[in-house]
Amino acid sequence: MLEMRCTVAVCWRILCSKSFSSSPVTPNRLAKPPLVCLDRPDIWCPAPFQAEVSSHLRHAYNEHTAAEIDGRSIANDIKATIATEVCNMKNSIKKVPGLGVILVGKRKDSLSFVRIKKKACEQVGITSVVIELPEDCTEDEVLDVVSVLNHKESIHGVLVQLPLPNHLCEEKIINAVNVEKDVDGFHPVNMGNLAMTGREPLFIPCASRGCIEVLNRCNVEILGKKVVVIGRSMIGGLPTSLLLQRHHATVSVVHAFTKNPENITCEADILVSDVGVPNLVRGDWLKPGVVVIDMGSTLVKGENNSESFHVTGDVCYEEAIRKASVISPVPGGVGPVTISMLLLNTVEAAKRAYKWTQ
Amino acid sequence: MLEMRCTVAVCWRILCSKSFSSSPVTPNRLAKPPLVCLDRPDIWCPAPFQAEVSSHLRHAYNEHTAAEIDGRSIANDIKATIATEVCNMKNSIKKVPGLGVILVGKRKDSLSFVRIKKKACEQVGITSVVIELPEDCTEDEVLDVVSVLNHKESIHGVLVQLPLPNHLCEEKIINAVNVEKDVDGFHPVNMGNLAMTGREPLFIPCASRGCIEVLNRCNVEILGKKVVVIGRSMIGGLPTSLLLQRHHATVSVVHAFTKNPENITCEADILVSDVGVPNLVRGDWLKPGVVVIDMGSTLVKGENNSESFHVTGDVCYEEAIRKASVISPVPGGVGPVTISMLLLNTVEAAKRAYKWTQ
Repeated sequence: MLEMRCTVAVCWRILCSKSFSSSPVTPNRLAKPPLVCLDRPDIWCPAPFQAEVSSHLRHAYNEHTAAEIDGRSIANDIKATIATEVCNMKNSIKKVPGLGVILVGKRKDSLSFVRIKKKACEQVGITSVVIELPEDCTEDEVLDVVSVLNHKESIHGVLVQLPLPNHLCEEKIINAVNVEKDVDGFHPVNMGNLAMTGREPLFIPCASRGCIEVLNRCNVEILGKKVVVIGRSMIGGLPTSLLLQRHHATVSVVHAFTKNPENITCEADILVSDVGVPNLVRGDWLKPGVVVIDMGSTLVKGENNSESFHVTGDVCYEEAIRKASVISPVPGGVGPVTISMLLLNTVEAAKRAYKWTQ
Repeated sequence: MLEMRCTVAVCWRILCSKSFSSSPVTPNRLAKPPLVCLDRPDIWCPAPFQAEVSSHLRHAYNEHTAAEIDGRSIANDIKATIATEVCNMKNSIKKVPGLGVILVGKRKDSLSFVRIKKKACEQVGITSVVIELPEDCTEDEVLDVVSVLNHKESIHGVLVQLPLPNHLCEEKIINAVNVEKDVDGFHPVNMGNLAMTGREPLFIPCASRGCIEVLNRCNVEILGKKVVVIGRSMIGGLPTSLLLQRHHATVSVVHAFTKNPENITCEADILVSDVGVPNLVRGDWLKPGVVVIDMGSTLVKGENNSESFHVTGDVCYEEAIRKASVISPVPGGVGPVTISMLLLNTVEAAKRAYKWTQ
């Protein structure tokens, strides 16, 4: 009896062909590869870990300093391809993709993010509309705007800039966005389909898609790697952990209730952090040679108590570059790629709406 | 500058009050505690690990043998409470909960599961209807039955017995189930809301809910524990990992692409396995004192090549009882509790439909 059970277990562990790869996204291909193309039978498959030098890495790896991911260069490549695609769409069917952004209130960071998104749309030829509502608007007023954008034929992506003021129900408003225009990927249908093997979400949250894009373009293998994601927010950590799992990484999610998180993070081949706490990840949290993707983004006051602010990530960069093999900096790492993923999601939504393929 | 960032990080790590507990479900309370009641700000919080002896454990822990979880006794307790609730509902509003099951084909295991579910419904006073369709039925025929059950007022839970024959699209059929009757919890809206902090799924998949129920009733603390889930299926591993994360465990998901899984599993305070591979988890995969929840279920031929079959789990029980502090056996562990969770989901659906509270 026991012997028979052993045989079944051994069969399950049969090694697979080495031709498996976790990187179906080739650098110059913008069409989103369907996640189901990643689905594989769960049979054991070891894969070698290798972080090759890519043109998007600022300097080659040596034993003292990590190679820095050049997120702006990746974003520029993507935006150039999107611009060509938008141009082709315009020439072909006389239509361009449209993005509708709803901004409630006057938060400094939200205003800045919306400005960046609007500018990025302009750069590639996507039409963008920003609807600004006062801080004290009602939920019904926001829902009315969502409804108008949902029904507007020239708008293919609808985005509600988060966070919303406390008196508004974020869940109700996000759930009101048409699933087919949910370019942020925060609708539960898209999130559920992202989680489930065999399912294809219409949209993947931009930061998570940006993280995978960065790893793929820097030739970092994901399949079979130990990945630790710090943070579990709807915007960053949660969808990123789900997406990395769909890419067959072994994912552990660390949060503030994790005891001795450094004992878990220091086992990671790839470390992703997205909690918005500057300096949280120290050098001794890292395994030598780890790939570090810093998705944190916090406004920090400048030196000498000046009035200037700058953006900083979760990782103590000065310490991390001495342990990591590859690192994405803040700013200039995943951030610009995240914006380009929003453009890509919008273009894909428009292509689906018009049933247009290049 | 660096100093300031350090201060912020230290603030984030401030220890919380010890009064936090991850077990809002008390053994005799059947109403599903809202997941959002578990939501907490992500500030660091160490919690002591203690597996107290419960009345549902067959024998107390000693250094050589694990205490065995008595799933049948837990399920009987739950069913007794459900039966009382159904009786009260009948007396109060002259209605009883109804479950509609769709069975396609004549798979031995599916027939057996449907029979068990039907019998469990009878035991507690829930009306059940089983619609049997031939193996070669069309997708439209299945969708028609789903639609009829969706609209039937006396049916509050609709369940499609899986797996379906290959020619039928499981995704299309499951997505057609009314979200408010999705007692299996497999609809992407429910799965997405299970994944996202702050969201409340209408239903949690029965096996996952059963796993938490077992841990709670055996006084196993979840918050802050290292949990390893082996498997990532829609039915078991995936929702269980999401739910355990909502309960603030630090969750790692191991699958067949994980290299040296035993190096990860042997760190777990709680190990959950749901892959359907007998004998996969050996004694050397376990940390001494671990709590083992075996959710695997495979029909295995009896000894001496006899024609009899019996159900077996993923864990090599003989080895595991010498390492674990608590173990759920197969059969008689999470299985019966899973069935009682289906009854509970159906009762909750009926209560919502009739806006009835006890």
